[in-house]
Amino acid sequence: MTAEPDAPKHRTAADFSTARLEAFSDGVFAIAITLLVLDLDVPDPAGLHGTTLAHALAHQWPSYFAYLVSFLVIGIIWINHHAMCSLARRVDRRTLFANLLLLLTVSVIPFPTRLLATYLTAQGGDAHTAAAIYAATMVAMGVAFSLLFLAFAHDARLLHTAIPPGDVIRALRRFGIGGVCYLATIGLAYLSPIAMLAVHALLAVYYCFDQLAPARRGR
Amino acid sequence: MTAEPDAPKHRTAADFSTARLEAFSDGVFAIAITLLVLDLDVPDPAGLHGTTLAHALAHQWPSYFAYLVSFLVIGIIWINHHAMCSLARRVDRRTLFANLLLLLTVSVIPFPTRLLATYLTAQGGDAHTAAAIYAATMVAMGVAFSLLFLAFAHDARLLHTAIPPGDVIRALRRFGIGGVCYLATIGLAYLSPIAMLAVHALLAVYYCFDQLAPARRGR
Amino acid sequence: MTAEPDAPKHRTAADFSTARLEAFSDGVFAIAITLLVLDLDVPDPAGLHGTTLAHALAHQWPSYFAYLVSFLVIGIIWINHHAMCSLARRVDRRTLFANLLLLLTVSVIPFPTRLLATYLTAQGGDAHTAAAIYAATMVAMGVAFSLLFLAFAHDARLLHTAIPPGDVIRALRRFGIGGVCYLATIGLAYLSPIAMLAVHALLAVYYCFDQLAPARRGR
Amino acid sequence: MTAEPDAPKHRTAADFSTARLEAFSDGVFAIAITLLVLDLDVPDPAGLHGTTLAHALAHQWPSYFAYLVSFLVIGIIWINHHAMCSLARRVDRRTLFANLLLLLTVSVIPFPTRLLATYLTAQGGDAHTAAAIYAATMVAMGVAFSLLFLAFAHDARLLHTAIPPGDVIRALRRFGIGGVCYLATIGLAYLSPIAMLAVHALLAVYYCFDQLAPARRGR
Repeated sequence: MTAEPDAPKHRTAADFSTARLEAFSDGVFAIAITLLVLDLDVPDPAGLHGTTLAHALAHQWPSYFAYLVSFLVIGIIWINHHAMCSLARRVDRRTLFANLLLLLTVSVIPFPTRLLATYLTAQGGDAHTAAAIYAATMVAMGVAFSLLFLAFAHDARLLHTAIPPGDVIRALRRFGIGGVCYLATIGLAYLSPIAMLAVHALLAVYYCFDQLAPARRGR
Repeated sequence: MTAEPDAPKHRTAADFSTARLEAFSDGVFAIAITLLVLDLDVPDPAGLHGTTLAHALAHQWPSYFAYLVSFLVIGIIWINHHAMCSLARRVDRRTLFANLLLLLTVSVIPFPTRLLATYLTAQGGDAHTAAAIYAATMVAMGVAFSLLFLAFAHDARLLHTAIPPGDVIRALRRFGIGGVCYLATIGLAYLSPIAMLAVHALLAVYYCFDQLAPARRGR
Repeated sequence: MTAEPDAPKHRTAADFSTARLEAFSDGVFAIAITLLVLDLDVPDPAGLHGTTLAHALAHQWPSYFAYLVSFLVIGIIWINHHAMCSLARRVDRRTLFANLLLLLTVSVIPFPTRLLATYLTAQGGDAHTAAAIYAATMVAMGVAFSLLFLAFAHDARLLHTAIPPGDVIRALRRFGIGGVCYLATIGLAYLSPIAMLAVHALLAVYYCFDQLAPARRGR
Repeated sequence: MTAEPDAPKHRTAADFSTARLEAFSDGVFAIAITLLVLDLDVPDPAGLHGTTLAHALAHQWPSYFAYLVSFLVIGIIWINHHAMCSLARRVDRRTLFANLLLLLTVSVIPFPTRLLATYLTAQGGDAHTAAAIYAATMVAMGVAFSLLFLAFAHDARLLHTAIPPGDVIRALRRFGIGGVCYLATIGLAYLSPIAMLAVHALLAVYYCFDQLAPARRGR
């Protein structure tokens, strides 16, 4: 699979093929995106207290909103992860660690999602706290994704084709702009938790189209 | 894997092989179908209040019924998903999005399943509400599946062999008839939630045999 | 992969390669075996009432026992499932259904496991009820496994090499003897739930060695 | 895939390719590492009793600490598992069992993690008990990993290239030293549960670098 006939000495236990990295990462992405459903609670019949189920379910709208945004975010990051991995032919220590860091930020998402769903409409500062933690998780994921890109771009031997320096700079500039937007949503969390969540939905959709756009430009 | 020697310029990050799409989708299907078991509750020993465990378990029959139907539905949609993917050789932006939408409707199924299990035998309108939500989830899944088919059929370059227009029309007609049946179960949910669930079990079995039937007709 | 150059007409959407069946089944096995850990409860600190954590954990021994046996059973059935699939080159409608039935019995195992862990040391008939349901789940799994074997053995075109009739009969006889043992454990559940669980641990180990033994006999 | 044209008689149901073993193991690793997130609890709004969410979340720091260490440990063991499997070309009965034992110790990790998170700051001996159980789980994982190595090293026919006896001895010596360190953390658990957890974080990082180091030494 990862045969390197001209350099057998460099074949070490640490030289993973990207296939293995992707299989494990795909598993984590698939599980994290599916575990989100455990954040949707069925109202306790004994707790309806005269109101209808429809009303109790409607009252839970923050759960559905947070679920949808987190589902979209994980789905998009999965698409981007694969796009990045398709450029690489093997992984080294740096990329393994950067990838593990990315998986950490992805697999933790069900926690801030449930946190935000629970406190989105809370009175006082608790909604801001929950929203800021949600936004900070997304910032951490963006940072981990950028680190993974840097780990790949750092060593041309890991790639099928070296990325031209100009493209690396352009990509980092885009990551930087994205990072500033993400950081700004932490601030937004203190103004309007709901707006923060909506912005993350928009950012996910934007990144997806941006990511996929080159296919149309005939790159 | 997805080498396109005659068109290397069109090889972009967005050109996924179907193998990757299937691996991720398989993961989501496998997890969603297995998470259903968390909807089966073990009666609390302290809550038996003099009745036997056997009686308490028998009382939970809506949970087993909803579990079985949802397991069957996810199993059949997995079979159909693979049948559709086997026609394709690569995926583009449209198919990625349509597939993500389908996975959203599949991975959410444990929620309406638990909802229906909890309220199937409830008094008043709550059973109807729960049943209508369950049926609506199935409608959404059918719509997403049709959109995925259209996304593949739309662009012959995504397929191993272009689907003849007549076959597309026949398939859409069948999806349309299926869609009407599914929509009708939302109405049925307001008449009899149990009948609604039984109809979905029958529809799943019918679609499976219908799907598999061509193998017998020597297509 | 499953190219059939001499019979392209028989290539239908329903002709799955076993690779796909195995990938999905592997996912379900891996998830079911890992979800068992959710059946192990951490004692509530507020509920210790003066006793130590060590004592409270020791009191939960039925949970660990049931966890271990179920882990072993799913592990062994995974090994046997792969051994069976390695004989096949493709799957048809019958095998897909039989496999879905097997996955149903496997993915439900966390439920009877938690049931048995909760009621193994209960007073009166509830321990018997829980143990009988556990044993019945294993019987259902054995039946589903035998049906899958029959579905494969039925049609030599599904296999790499047809299984000699003598081997089919021998295998069915062994399945039959195993089935009688499994059925007997339902009866044993009413005598001693703990003995029932111990017998299932022994049966799993026996089947594993029996399964693997041919490797030593140079078959 | 695992065709052995010169020795078809030795092709038995028990001769797994390592690809299958890895796919199943990857699934279990991915699920166990992602299920850890279920150990992070969202504070109940009704239970805040006048304190802020930020304060309640900060109070839960043992959960985050235990989550991070367990995530790191499973991530590193996954890397090492793949490094070991990459040396092998097929698996036999011994390796299947040793691998199942390793998966048992990995998939159970969410339980001692939640246990430790719950009792890390408890008064009296309960924190020691929880910490000792956590450390003992890691010891068991180390033992299972060593057994898997021995099962592979035992039979050169399972490997791409036989491991030189000197390397086996060196590896076992390293496993032995590691084992002593791990055992020592059980003792440390009775002195300081927090130090025990910190040491496991350090050991995981050390093993990762140690494992990956040969890539730098041009082995």
